[in-house]
Amino acid sequence: MPSNQDQSAVTVLGLGPMGRALAGAFLDAGLTTTVWNRTPGRDRELVARGAVGARSPEEAVAASGVVVVCVVNYDASDAVLRREAVASALKGRTVVNLTADTPERARDTARWAAEHGVGYLDGAIMTPTTTMGTPDGVFLHSGPEALYKRSRPVLAALGGTHTHLGEDVGRAAAYDIALLDIFWTAMSGYAHALAVARAEGVSARELAPFARGIGAILPPIFEETAAEVADGRFGGDDNPLTSAVSSMAHIVHTSEAHGIDAGVMRAAEGMVRRAVGLGHGADGFARLPEVLGRHLAGA
Amino acid sequence: MPSNQDQSAVTVLGLGPMGRALAGAFLDAGLTTTVWNRTPGRDRELVARGAVGARSPEEAVAASGVVVVCVVNYDASDAVLRREAVASALKGRTVVNLTADTPERARDTARWAAEHGVGYLDGAIMTPTTTMGTPDGVFLHSGPEALYKRSRPVLAALGGTHTHLGEDVGRAAAYDIALLDIFWTAMSGYAHALAVARAEGVSARELAPFARGIGAILPPIFEETAAEVADGRFGGDDNPLTSAVSSMAHIVHTSEAHGIDAGVMRAAEGMVRRAVGLGHGADGFARLPEVLGRHLAGA
Ligand SMILES: NC(=O)c1ccc[n+]([C@@H]2O[C@H](COP(=O)([O-])OP(=O)(O)OC[C@H]3O[C@@H](n4cnc5c(N)ncnc54)[C@H](OP(=O)(O)O)[C@@H]3O)[C@@H](O)[C@H]2O)c1
Ligand SMILES: NC(=O)c1ccc[n+]([C@@H]2O[C@H](COP(=O)([O-])OP(=O)(O)OC[C@H]3O[C@@H](n4cnc5c(N)ncnc54)[C@H](OP(=O)(O)O)[C@@H]3O)[C@@H](O)[C@H]2O)c1
Repeated sequence: MPSNQDQSAVTVLGLGPMGRALAGAFLDAGLTTTVWNRTPGRDRELVARGAVGARSPEEAVAASGVVVVCVVNYDASDAVLRREAVASALKGRTVVNLTADTPERARDTARWAAEHGVGYLDGAIMTPTTTMGTPDGVFLHSGPEALYKRSRPVLAALGGTHTHLGEDVGRAAAYDIALLDIFWTAMSGYAHALAVARAEGVSARELAPFARGIGAILPPIFEETAAEVADGRFGGDDNPLTSAVSSMAHIVHTSEAHGIDAGVMRAAEGMVRRAVGLGHGADGFARLPEVLGRHLAGA
Repeated sequence: MPSNQDQSAVTVLGLGPMGRALAGAFLDAGLTTTVWNRTPGRDRELVARGAVGARSPEEAVAASGVVVVCVVNYDASDAVLRREAVASALKGRTVVNLTADTPERARDTARWAAEHGVGYLDGAIMTPTTTMGTPDGVFLHSGPEALYKRSRPVLAALGGTHTHLGEDVGRAAAYDIALLDIFWTAMSGYAHALAVARAEGVSARELAPFARGIGAILPPIFEETAAEVADGRFGGDDNPLTSAVSSMAHIVHTSEAHGIDAGVMRAAEGMVRRAVGLGHGADGFARLPEVLGRHLAGA
């Protein structure tokens, strides 16, 4: 049995698409990889590639010093970890929980782990399954720095870029929430745009190269907007909120004229109209975070 | 007075940020540039650079064979163009309307133009003011091909990429609506993300490099999703809608726990939950356009 500090062994709990990709990357890197999933049979391909299939989570965690958890959310992660048998098998080991959820859930489970003598890090994976084991993966981590340093060699087997965001174990989830907010909102807009385009006789293939172009202008605009927010400049010179709401209203109108629900854009338009109503019509989008969080003390 | 076919003269109606950028690019390219704006004084800098400041729209349009219009929307554009004096001054000339609005408004004004013997093209500018006169501008055009070919030399002075999307004059606006749908939705998600991040103690500057990273993964995902939609594949293998709604619920929860309105994400989550409720939980975002437009005959 590997020691609790052994860097050549790892356990993966949860074999959904991401858990399987993680376990596959560990195997490719030559680590002794023990796997477990609630629903049996998901480990078949991994075991064929050399993974050890455990029959229970307690058996799985006992096999390695570092235990990576990757299930749908913290309800699932708690269902797996927060049992007596698992807690005692985990004692002295380190859990790296790559399950996505809220900062408060990460902090709550970290408290449970501390009470049970279990090392605890929370992390977030910001890139798709296909990036696991490649240089393109992006991983965020938070929790005790010493623990992070000790787990670093195992995590390095996943390739990609790993950033430790600080000792507050909720920090990775906070970044994750904010970044997924951008991602899912953008994807929702894209899905809606494809529906409206189709209603106008424009196919997904026809729109795609231009959609790609819109995607390509976002990163520098994100950066410039962040700089404006940081500096307390509110932009708008070349793209005032009044112009944005006019454009948003056209989208709602065209969508609804085709009977396509425009709830997302209606909500976005409402958010911008609130800022305009508060007298910020000449400002740009950099004004919105402040308007949305106006009630927050010190924010 | 330049002939109606003269390619060395152009008129710009509307001197907001974009109209000024267009007029500036025409001047830089050496065209005789006549400008007009509803509110006087906006032409000052342009006139200092050599533009001709007209006192009325009819005087302005009489000066050039190609008349570029760029105002806030078609209500404004109609207010400028659809008057007897302007219509008769426009006779035999070509209007290139770069004002953003809906496809139906473009078609409606094109009908008016045809009745008055005015050549009419509608266009859309997909990039910011700073790209005018540079290789980075992206312009979409629609309307009669022959007219487009004749106006091409004047438009070329704006630099960038110009695409003629077809004879249906509403087509540029249809693309524009779909692409702005992506853009404004993504920007709304970003503004909200900055607010939630700040409430979690993560500054705009801290989030920015990762937000940039999320922006960078969008273009290939947009392209892959379009290919799935085109092929009637619904993806989801690695990123099912069930996983997306779980993630979206975390964002709503975290946002509202800080008292930050989550209306946009709530609407997006609702859209995805409807697709899950229809039995598409194992599919990916490629399923959504079909669900949103399900009632459309033949779509
Ligand atoms: N897929 C991606 O591209 C991606 C990218 C970044 C981050 N992530 C994150 O990675 C995590 C895992 O995602 P995924 O793509 O692998 O698929 P997923 O659908 O989010 O999660 C599936 C996994 O969760 C397990 N699970 C669900 N409920 C459970 C419960 N009550 N008890 C025990 N296990 C339970 C499933 O086990 P069963 O097989 O028994 O149902 C399966 O192992 C998520 O938090 C996701 O947000 C995924
Ligand atoms: N700015 C950008 O980065 C950008 C990018 C792509 C596309 N566009 C599009 O370009 C167009 C112009 O945008 P913009 O940025 O220049 O600013 P804007 O705020 O959208 O439009 C301002 C212009 O509209 C005029 N206007 C408004 N109501 C009018 C009316 N009733 N009669 C006559 N003129 C009226 C204004 O004249 P006054 O000065 O008299 O008010 C001013 O010239 C819009 O359709 C916009 O969507 C802009």
